[in-house]
Amino acid sequence: MPRSQGSGAPIASPAAAAVFTTVLTRGPASRVDVCRLTGLSSAAVTKAARPLIEAGYLRELAPTGRTAPGAGRPASPLAIAPEREYFVGIKITGDDLIGVVTDLGSRIVTSRHRPVPGFDVRTDASTTSMEPADVVAAIAALTTELLDEHPGFRERTHRLGVAISGDVDRGTGTVRYSPFLGWRDVPLAALLDEATGLTTTLENDVKALAVAEHWFGEGVGTSSFALVTVGTGIGSAFVVNGGLVSGAFGVSGEIGHVPIGVDGPRCHCGATGCLEAVASTQALLTEARRATGVDDLTIDQAVDLARSGDQVLRKVFAIAGRAIGLGLAVVANLLGPERLVVSGEGLDAYDLFEESIREAFSAQAYGSAGRCGLTIRPLPFEEWARGAATVAVQCMVSASG
Amino acid sequence: MPRSQGSGAPIASPAAAAVFTTVLTRGPASRVDVCRLTGLSSAAVTKAARPLIEAGYLRELAPTGRTAPGAGRPASPLAIAPEREYFVGIKITGDDLIGVVTDLGSRIVTSRHRPVPGFDVRTDASTTSMEPADVVAAIAALTTELLDEHPGFRERTHRLGVAISGDVDRGTGTVRYSPFLGWRDVPLAALLDEATGLTTTLENDVKALAVAEHWFGEGVGTSSFALVTVGTGIGSAFVVNGGLVSGAFGVSGEIGHVPIGVDGPRCHCGATGCLEAVASTQALLTEARRATGVDDLTIDQAVDLARSGDQVLRKVFAIAGRAIGLGLAVVANLLGPERLVVSGEGLDAYDLFEESIREAFSAQAYGSAGRCGLTIRPLPFEEWARGAATVAVQCMVSASG
Repeated sequence: MPRSQGSGAPIASPAAAAVFTTVLTRGPASRVDVCRLTGLSSAAVTKAARPLIEAGYLRELAPTGRTAPGAGRPASPLAIAPEREYFVGIKITGDDLIGVVTDLGSRIVTSRHRPVPGFDVRTDASTTSMEPADVVAAIAALTTELLDEHPGFRERTHRLGVAISGDVDRGTGTVRYSPFLGWRDVPLAALLDEATGLTTTLENDVKALAVAEHWFGEGVGTSSFALVTVGTGIGSAFVVNGGLVSGAFGVSGEIGHVPIGVDGPRCHCGATGCLEAVASTQALLTEARRATGVDDLTIDQAVDLARSGDQVLRKVFAIAGRAIGLGLAVVANLLGPERLVVSGEGLDAYDLFEESIREAFSAQAYGSAGRCGLTIRPLPFEEWARGAATVAVQCMVSASG
Repeated sequence: MPRSQGSGAPIASPAAAAVFTTVLTRGPASRVDVCRLTGLSSAAVTKAARPLIEAGYLRELAPTGRTAPGAGRPASPLAIAPEREYFVGIKITGDDLIGVVTDLGSRIVTSRHRPVPGFDVRTDASTTSMEPADVVAAIAALTTELLDEHPGFRERTHRLGVAISGDVDRGTGTVRYSPFLGWRDVPLAALLDEATGLTTTLENDVKALAVAEHWFGEGVGTSSFALVTVGTGIGSAFVVNGGLVSGAFGVSGEIGHVPIGVDGPRCHCGATGCLEAVASTQALLTEARRATGVDDLTIDQAVDLARSGDQVLRKVFAIAGRAIGLGLAVVANLLGPERLVVSGEGLDAYDLFEESIREAFSAQAYGSAGRCGLTIRPLPFEEWARGAATVAVQCMVSASG
């Protein structure tokens, strides 16, 4: 069946999309600033903004500043009306579904978790195979729960964003390959359109998070931007020349499979020395158990012991941090991003990593590539779902252009 | 003084630039193909093409194919008129200047070499410092020699492209940092505008070569494209989302400073294990001398001995090839280019490298990133100068838009 068209903001031209995006991500903004940031004339901005104001997506704030006599009307900055539309964002993880409702400005207004029926968290994720129908039903149920929380949500929500790790084709809404679900070529967006009645946008989870950071986080206003996530896997996504780097064959941002040490450990991908084989949460735990001789050590115990001064474990974390820092330098040396954000659930213990990450990055970054701003911080799990919702916002803006 | 404006093709709108670029890089092309490739309407293509045809930059070829009765006029494909304008391209190397004249279609019509006065090829390039005035005078003299070769050249040449390694800002025409010339912040393009009477475009040499490959070589028609050059240094440049990746702080494509082995040799940049410290021509020679114990071995001798079956030297080349292959896999895993070209004077002996490059690439490329087409070939030195000329062509197209 054909994918349905979502309702949403009346964006009828590339100029309207540019104006709306600018106010959404940089606003409130004076009309002068919108002209400067979009390169459009004052008349073009006024023409593009009018239907968006009439439909309630943009509003004019009270005039600011004084105006000299004869200088015309004082400026009324443009701002979005955040509650005009809501978006559902859902991240599919190896454990459960995380869902949020965000407003137009990507602020989380509610969140919920829900297990996928039949999913056994004790099972090794790489051997799990889940039926698409079960996942679709669980997502539809979670969406209903979220939208039932407030009378306004259902009425003002037209779009669903879904984020999942692996090889995802946003254009066709297909999961081309998901190792942890055991899926190949599943048309998940179309299945979810039908099950939820919303227009679904599907994106790789790290790319979705990069979109959220670029539009509403650390990446706002940058010409090039990189996000690296550290956790069960190690991934990255880049914004270059105004767009996500998507990869001609579906693969990009696989920083986890950059060879950091030629003679390093064997990676699950078959190569040796991959960053993921050194610094993923599992790799870190394996090394911590080996170094301490405690076979049933948990990651939380390893973190606690390292924080209380255990030198053996502190060194394990430092070695992983060094590998991450080298990986970041590879990104900086090749792409020269203006800003680099390192995040992910693996950085909950970033106090144990940060120094060695920064040291290795500085040593390996080439010349002025090292001037790239480096933000290192943990990532609440809801942020993944917020990323999914942001992709739905982005799709509303561009779909109508 | 303000930079001068070059004469050239009458390109008055983004649509005209798109039509001209399409015919230049993909032509001869039917109007239907031009519409498809540019996304413009038939009327817009006709409007954009007319002044370019009138000024002699585009021409209509004789109609091709038969037309069914009533189907209107037969199609007349659009093509460039290559001799309508010529371009000078000059590459500044550590040894001398290499200059070419190309036609509009980037075909080399003549080439010359010229030493820079006072440059001593026996000096270690890293300690040389040359006066900008001397280099400018030498480039101006070489340009005059080239343009005097044929009566038509001077009259139809308005633009000069100059390629140089290091940190170059095309926008302002400044050499921000050239290690081998010992320059910082030299406004070379403005100096050359004045000395030659041509409009000068300055670009990093590897980026210029990538532009040439993207417009007229292996990269034509690709959505994303990567070029890696191997020689005295190891560099790379990428085309992503329709543009060169330029780096927010002037650095990008520094694949030579990707850490291939954590415990590898010390690099001149201060880090350890850089690809350039393992596989540049100098690194290879150092390792060949160490492995054979012959302190005055030359690179040509090393190549000859390896080709005649010397197993020690064959292994030295294979190890360097493996490092290059891993570096290519890093690019593929991060950017997922549609095509990857490996070239440079260091690949004159590519028969000794190719197998180990391909093996290491295949082993490290992640999933479908390995489907990226991989071309490995040597690079005649004139190609660097042709790259410089191509950047001048590109500047003519975009400057008027």
